[in-house]
Amino acid sequence: MNFSIKKPGNKIAEQLSHKINNKTKPLGSLGRLEEIAQKTGLIQQTLTPELKAPAILVFSADHGIAAEGVSPFPQEVTQQMVLNFVNGGAGINVFARQNGIGIKVVDAGVKGDFDDSIKSEIINAKIAEGTRSFLNGPAMTIEQCKQAVRKGAEIVQQYSDNGCNVIGFGEMGIGNTSSSAMLMHCITGEPLETCVGKGTGLDEEGLKKKRDILAGSLKHYNDNGSPLQILSHYGGFELAMIAGGFLKAAENKMTIIVDGFNVTASLLVAHKIEPNVLDYCIFAHHSDEKGHAKMLEHLDAKPLLNLNMRLGEGTGAAVAYPIIEASVNFLNEMASFDEAGVSNV
Amino acid sequence: MNFSIKKPGNKIAEQLSHKINNKTKPLGSLGRLEEIAQKTGLIQQTLTPELKAPAILVFSADHGIAAEGVSPFPQEVTQQMVLNFVNGGAGINVFARQNGIGIKVVDAGVKGDFDDSIKSEIINAKIAEGTRSFLNGPAMTIEQCKQAVRKGAEIVQQYSDNGCNVIGFGEMGIGNTSSSAMLMHCITGEPLETCVGKGTGLDEEGLKKKRDILAGSLKHYNDNGSPLQILSHYGGFELAMIAGGFLKAAENKMTIIVDGFNVTASLLVAHKIEPNVLDYCIFAHHSDEKGHAKMLEHLDAKPLLNLNMRLGEGTGAAVAYPIIEASVNFLNEMASFDEAGVSNV
Repeated sequence: MNFSIKKPGNKIAEQLSHKINNKTKPLGSLGRLEEIAQKTGLIQQTLTPELKAPAILVFSADHGIAAEGVSPFPQEVTQQMVLNFVNGGAGINVFARQNGIGIKVVDAGVKGDFDDSIKSEIINAKIAEGTRSFLNGPAMTIEQCKQAVRKGAEIVQQYSDNGCNVIGFGEMGIGNTSSSAMLMHCITGEPLETCVGKGTGLDEEGLKKKRDILAGSLKHYNDNGSPLQILSHYGGFELAMIAGGFLKAAENKMTIIVDGFNVTASLLVAHKIEPNVLDYCIFAHHSDEKGHAKMLEHLDAKPLLNLNMRLGEGTGAAVAYPIIEASVNFLNEMASFDEAGVSNV
Repeated sequence: MNFSIKKPGNKIAEQLSHKINNKTKPLGSLGRLEEIAQKTGLIQQTLTPELKAPAILVFSADHGIAAEGVSPFPQEVTQQMVLNFVNGGAGINVFARQNGIGIKVVDAGVKGDFDDSIKSEIINAKIAEGTRSFLNGPAMTIEQCKQAVRKGAEIVQQYSDNGCNVIGFGEMGIGNTSSSAMLMHCITGEPLETCVGKGTGLDEEGLKKKRDILAGSLKHYNDNGSPLQILSHYGGFELAMIAGGFLKAAENKMTIIVDGFNVTASLLVAHKIEPNVLDYCIFAHHSDEKGHAKMLEHLDAKPLLNLNMRLGEGTGAAVAYPIIEASVNFLNEMASFDEAGVSNV
C-alpha cells in the first residue's frame, strides 16, 4: 500500500508561463485553458505536453446498503448497466466515443455472474458479490479493502505501461452515493445533512429515509482516522479500486480527470493517504449531487464544467475532456506574436 | 431588411422530453445537455437532430475609434490577425480544427489590402477601410450599415444552402469592444460603467480613459431607438454583418452558437429587430469582458461554459461545440430502458 507520489518539479513553470503569454492573444485571455495548459505541462515536465491514449475506467460494484432502501433503483440495475456499457448504449459510451476516449468496464464486485462473452469485454476483478450492508458493521474486511485498492492500482499501472497518460474514472453501483456520503462525512467532518443527497433521484421522503439509515449506521462505526479503515467500513469495491487508481495514476505522473460525487469521494480517501495526488488532478465538473460542492471546497478544487449533470459513469470527465485537449492544443499549436508577425503591446 | 423568423413549433416538445426521459439514466441527470438536446430537436423539428457541416465565420474589420486610444493594441493588429487566421495559427484555428468546425474569415472592413493569395482564402466583403471614429459622429452611414447586415445575411445563406445547419460567429477588430459597449448601452440602457470593460487588457487608467472617450461620444448621438440607427452610429462592419448573420441563420432554422461580448452585442441588435432569433441560439460561454454578464441577463441567457475566457474570434463557441455535440449524440445514441433491458423506477 505504498505509493510514491512526488510533486511535479517547478523549474519549468516560468518557461511554460512565458510560452503561454507569448501566444497571439491578449494576456490571460484563455482563462482556465491557460491554467490547464500550465498544469499539464508541469505534470509532464515539458513545454509540449501530449495527451496519449486517453481512457476512462468504469468501476462497477454492488452495495449491501442498497437492500436497506437507500436508492429508488433496484440492485440488479448495476449488472444491467454493465451489459449496457458493453453494448455501447450508456451515456459514458456515447461521450467517450465522441471524444476519442477508450473506455473499459471493471467488475469490481457486481452481484451475479456474467456470460463469457461479457467477461471477455470487461476487466474481471470481482472482490465479492457486492459489499455487506454497513448498517450494522463494516462493508468489507480490511483485507478486501486492501485487495481492491491494490487491484485498482494494478489496472491503472497496466494502462500506464501501455502508453496511456491521461485517465478518468467512472463508477456504477446502485447505492454508492450512500457509501460516498459516509466517506465524505468521516473524512471531511461535514454533517450528514450536507453529505447525503438524492442520488439517482429520491424524493424528499426518500432522502429523509436515506439520511436516517445512514445516521443509524454510525452507531456501529469507530473512527480511528485511518483512511483504509474508513474505506473498508463504508466504501464500495469500486470506490476502493478508484482510490487505488488515483494513487497509482499520480505515481505514474498521469493527468487525472476527476468526475463527480462518487469519484471525488474516492479521491478524498486517496488524498488522505497521499495529499500530492491533487497535483495530478483536473476536476471535470461540478455535479448536482448535493455533497459535491463541499467536497470540492474541501479539496480547494474548481471544476471546468457546471452543467447540472449527476449521471456518474465518468460522464462528467468524458464531456470535459475536449476542454483539456483544447488547453494542450493551444499550447502546442497557436503561433506566438513573433512567429505570426503580430504586434504585441 | 426583412427577416421572417418563426418560433419553432412546439408540437414535438413532449415527444422529445419522453425520448430524453427514457434514456438509461436517472431522470434529469444529464442536466443542461438535456436542455440543449430538447432545443436542437425543436429547432430541427425532429427527434433525431443532426449537426451538419458546423462552421464559424470570423468577421474582421477596423474601427475608427481605435485611433482615440481605446485599445492597448495598435490598429494594424486586425490585419495581422487575419493573416494569422489564414495561416492557421490563431486560437480559433486551433479549437475549430480540434472540434471539426470549418472556419472562414470575412473581411468586413479591414484597413489595408490583402495579397491575392490571402484574398483567395477569405471572403472579401469589405464595406470600407474601417469605420469612422464615432467620437464626433456616426461610425458608418445607414446605407453602409444596411449593406453590411445584408452581406452578413447573404454569406450565412450560402452556408445554409451548402448544408450547414449549425453556425457560430467570431470577430476580430481592434477597438471593437468600444463599439459593443456602446451598442449595449444604447440597447439595454445599462450605465456605461457596466458596459465598458478592459477589452484586450487595459489597465485601470486605460479603462478610465476608454470610458471617458465613450461617454464623450454620446454628445453627438441622438437615439431614435431604431436598432439600425444605433448600429450605424456605433457599430463596426463586422458587428453589423454578424447581426445580419444571426437573423438569416434563424430564418433558415440553423442552430446558432453565441460567442462572447462582441458577438452578443450584435445579437442584442438582431434581437431588437426580431426577438424570435433567440429561439435558435445556444450561448457558448460567459466571457470575462465586463459587460457580458449583464448582456446575458438582458437576454435571459445562461451560457454553457464559464472558463474566464475573453479572446474573441469565436473561440468560446468553438470550445463549447463538443458539449452541443454531446447533447445531440446522447439523444440519438443512448439506449432507452426498454432497449437495454434496464429496470426503471
